[in-house]
Amino acid sequence: MNEPLKTIRETKPLIHHITNWVTIYECANMTRAFGALPVMAHAPEECADMTKISSALVLNIGTLTSEIIDSMLLSAAAANERDIPVVLDAVGVGATKFRDEMAAKILASVHIDIIKGNYSEIAKLAGENAETKGVEATSIDADPAKVAKAFAKAESCVVVMTGKEDIISDGDRTFIVKNGHELMGSIVGTGCMAASIVGLFAAVNRDYCDAAKDALCYFGASGELAAAKSSGPGSFKVHLYDEVFNLSDEKVKSMKNFEEK
Amino acid sequence: MNEPLKTIRETKPLIHHITNWVTIYECANMTRAFGALPVMAHAPEECADMTKISSALVLNIGTLTSEIIDSMLLSAAAANERDIPVVLDAVGVGATKFRDEMAAKILASVHIDIIKGNYSEIAKLAGENAETKGVEATSIDADPAKVAKAFAKAESCVVVMTGKEDIISDGDRTFIVKNGHELMGSIVGTGCMAASIVGLFAAVNRDYCDAAKDALCYFGASGELAAAKSSGPGSFKVHLYDEVFNLSDEKVKSMKNFEEK
Amino acid sequence: MNEPLKTIRETKPLIHHITNWVTIYECANMTRAFGALPVMAHAPEECADMTKISSALVLNIGTLTSEIIDSMLLSAAAANERDIPVVLDAVGVGATKFRDEMAAKILASVHIDIIKGNYSEIAKLAGENAETKGVEATSIDADPAKVAKAFAKAESCVVVMTGKEDIISDGDRTFIVKNGHELMGSIVGTGCMAASIVGLFAAVNRDYCDAAKDALCYFGASGELAAAKSSGPGSFKVHLYDEVFNLSDEKVKSMKNFEEK
Repeated sequence: MNEPLKTIRETKPLIHHITNWVTIYECANMTRAFGALPVMAHAPEECADMTKISSALVLNIGTLTSEIIDSMLLSAAAANERDIPVVLDAVGVGATKFRDEMAAKILASVHIDIIKGNYSEIAKLAGENAETKGVEATSIDADPAKVAKAFAKAESCVVVMTGKEDIISDGDRTFIVKNGHELMGSIVGTGCMAASIVGLFAAVNRDYCDAAKDALCYFGASGELAAAKSSGPGSFKVHLYDEVFNLSDEKVKSMKNFEEK
Repeated sequence: MNEPLKTIRETKPLIHHITNWVTIYECANMTRAFGALPVMAHAPEECADMTKISSALVLNIGTLTSEIIDSMLLSAAAANERDIPVVLDAVGVGATKFRDEMAAKILASVHIDIIKGNYSEIAKLAGENAETKGVEATSIDADPAKVAKAFAKAESCVVVMTGKEDIISDGDRTFIVKNGHELMGSIVGTGCMAASIVGLFAAVNRDYCDAAKDALCYFGASGELAAAKSSGPGSFKVHLYDEVFNLSDEKVKSMKNFEEK
Repeated sequence: MNEPLKTIRETKPLIHHITNWVTIYECANMTRAFGALPVMAHAPEECADMTKISSALVLNIGTLTSEIIDSMLLSAAAANERDIPVVLDAVGVGATKFRDEMAAKILASVHIDIIKGNYSEIAKLAGENAETKGVEATSIDADPAKVAKAFAKAESCVVVMTGKEDIISDGDRTFIVKNGHELMGSIVGTGCMAASIVGLFAAVNRDYCDAAKDALCYFGASGELAAAKSSGPGSFKVHLYDEVFNLSDEKVKSMKNFEEK
């Protein structure tokens, strides 16, 4: 897509989140900083209605309960009916049996357009040998890009594997995004923010593989710009929001750092 | 009231919130920055007890569930009995049927002293033709000041309509507050913070219309001071807290920008 | 312990929190800033499993419900079995009967290794005459250090009483930590962060009294460094994270300010 950020700022898509209680503010605030409108609503009585007026649905199981999963299924079904893109951030899959089961239940019950996770979360979801240390990736045996590609093909979706390098695949094309900075890992929530950003780029670009690749390039570039001005996680977070807010398609053009594999 | 901020800092009123999970920290932190004491408690077993020792109750339905609404009703009833001011921030009314119904249920069950919302939320509550895009106002057909005034009269309460200009009415007097800065809309939570601030000004001033007007002048003035030093939403939020903390009644005196209509 | 911070950064202990919805992000983010890994999980189906792979469990009843207390009991029992240290932050005890009862239920059901609270919270827990204004300490009649020591002995645990000076006692040794700065009280969440930090120091030091003393010295020293650069709560929070991130055992050595009583 040519100017995704300009499109986001002009159309202000509504991004419905059913997410975790840790980073819920950061997800909303980052959505706003990019120029879109966040809304968080998880009550079973209204969640599908909120999804229906939204342009993307972002699900994040960071602090899941079985009730929250039920709401996610209601919203995802409503999104599926209307062809609204659904992003699932599979936080902590591989850490407990309950997370593995709930993630599997979601994948079995509704169509997820974009599945995001770190290396061990995606590997575990894909049936590989992997464990997650809480919500933190551990090393995996398999080749990440191959896992992403095969899993995307199996699920007919786009897979986003985040790590030192981000891998995006729709089972056909595979992108490796190298934008980003290690300070992004020094604050809690950049992973969750990334899922929100993927959601808002998908809201304006029906090619979800391209949208996810753009999302991570734009976010990573913002991280690089912010890191250059920061002396720790406190100042980094401040600059990250400022840089996202002041980003432009033009500015990112020369910073994009990805390859197709 | 002559020196509301000085009074808040001297008496440190306890402000009980039953609020949403997105901005709950920001509501608490802003309450503290103004010099009052926040407390958040929503369990049905204790919420009324917490209200009874508080000087104001702030309800915010941003991420409502039916259980949370039940707790709000328990706390509001306890507040009504003791003449403790109750603020309702009608977040997202006009976006889903459930929000409309729950807000109506609150208004039918307990007395709300100050109802706050953006233009479309208040218009919807007042029975006008209005829709809310998630939690974001859309344009309304009716004249906002007239809607606020009529609704305040109908509900025997103070109505606070926030937007580019804020409208405050008790059905008799109507104030238009012009303090504020557009960067306040660049971060998530300034609307929710405003409800908290209205609560803490009401905790020290029985003239709730005057209290709400002051609250929005003080908050808006802080926003103006912060914006002058900021280059985006990240730095703006930092400066906003610093400016509120360093605010004085004296400083606001020359900055107040409102008119009586 | 000689170099606790170095050990934390090298071993990256996983710190499982079941905590409140107000400061949950700050608890996670501060855990990360110190170099440990936070995980928040409260579903009854998984909380014990998450505890089992963690190096410390931090419980905080700031926004307790009876369901959350049940999850805390499941996790604490799992921690007790494996000798994983359990920290309880008794937020708001003394404010409502429900909090008093739930805290008593926890203490009666599982072993808490480190009980933390402000002066009135601990005094109330210990059966003294005390009231808490929401989550804010009020003055207590008894001598705080004596209360801490006697309560630690009675519960066979370490007691951490936070205030202008922090008191740590295992019933035998009693430390008074004087590090810290009043700006730490200007933001919401430093008390909760302190409990997390106690948890992560306990994760690498089996002498929990020593670990808690170190935790408060390190956090207080960071607060002092941050305060010197700050002009209010907004900038203070930014600097606090940066200073924690850039802290070293070496740097704290000359700043430690405590005495054994």
